[in-house]
Amino acid sequence: MREETGLDWKIALDSAAVLNLASQTTSEWLLRAEAHLDEVLLDHAHCEKKAAGAAIKLLFSYPHHRFLQEPLAELAREELEHFQQILMLLDARSIRYETIKPSPYGMALHRLVRRDDPDRLLDLLTIAALIEARSCERFQILADGIDDAVLGDLYRSLLVSEARHHGTYRELAAQLVGREVAETRLAELAEAEAEIIARPCEWVRVHAG
Amino acid sequence: MREETGLDWKIALDSAAVLNLASQTTSEWLLRAEAHLDEVLLDHAHCEKKAAGAAIKLLFSYPHHRFLQEPLAELAREELEHFQQILMLLDARSIRYETIKPSPYGMALHRLVRRDDPDRLLDLLTIAALIEARSCERFQILADGIDDAVLGDLYRSLLVSEARHHGTYRELAAQLVGREVAETRLAELAEAEAEIIARPCEWVRVHAG
Repeated sequence: MREETGLDWKIALDSAAVLNLASQTTSEWLLRAEAHLDEVLLDHAHCEKKAAGAAIKLLFSYPHHRFLQEPLAELAREELEHFQQILMLLDARSIRYETIKPSPYGMALHRLVRRDDPDRLLDLLTIAALIEARSCERFQILADGIDDAVLGDLYRSLLVSEARHHGTYRELAAQLVGREVAETRLAELAEAEAEIIARPCEWVRVHAG
Repeated sequence: MREETGLDWKIALDSAAVLNLASQTTSEWLLRAEAHLDEVLLDHAHCEKKAAGAAIKLLFSYPHHRFLQEPLAELAREELEHFQQILMLLDARSIRYETIKPSPYGMALHRLVRRDDPDRLLDLLTIAALIEARSCERFQILADGIDDAVLGDLYRSLLVSEARHHGTYRELAAQLVGREVAETRLAELAEAEAEIIARPCEWVRVHAG
């Protein structure tokens, strides 16, 4: 397991701007998450698996893009390791691992993906960067706000990885179309992401309002 | 990276029977592989990626089977690490990573998968076990037969993992339907696999005759 120090995450998250998000999660979300913590942890397990799945899907969709292969294989391995960590946590807390209704967030974001490449791939990479950023932001809120030392340590270690993954996707987008085009699209999709994450959702999820 | 000693693989591969294969690869395949080594290495990279993809696909198809989750996440992580290793090898040998026509082996095997569960999952696990076994057998042939110390060491380390993965899939099949039913189906599908791998193929592949 990768070592993440307290210092790392303070550097990684010096400000929300580092993560390129266009909104900040409200304290209201933390209250809901605290009240439905088991559900949030279960959702989190599925999020890690989906993050690995999304990276692997890109490897299969774009085998001709050599520059994607190692970084996304590495990223998928880390997400799978996190998935295993969260499964252990669920077991330790007697939370049954089962399917859960996902938040509409991922699907809403993916509706914004343009059809033709390289726009399509740029959008997929940018959306993945934003999802990692939002996860990171929320893990920090959980790490700071929940009165549970085990969860605090876990989320502090995970959020550093999420910040790194955000950077990986952002860098891959820049390699694909150049930094200026990539950053412009990131800013556009960040606005959309802020609107989508704010939508009311009847369930408490890592990626729901 | 996991340490694999020479002793490990001798134990793992004491006989072909350990791998439950119904046929042995002929020396003719080694001659063809030697003559088209770059193509075999490229095919191998894709095989590792496909092995990871297949494991992840099972995680998504069967989220309600808790017993699959950690072993397959762990297995997928290892396959991704192997994929990265083979990409490095391709780079070191100036072999361009690109798409390659796959052997018909995987598709032919998957045509044997029954439609309804638990038969379907049993067949998917059993076929995965056989593919790992065949990879392992062929990696041993490459390790022993090719006059290249770097490849020899690489294939000796990889075949131990493949043997372990064969065991993982076989064990998961037994957990699903009991050992007797699982082993009966393994023997049946091993016969089919032996017939499929022997089919003439115009390309040289890890999984082709």
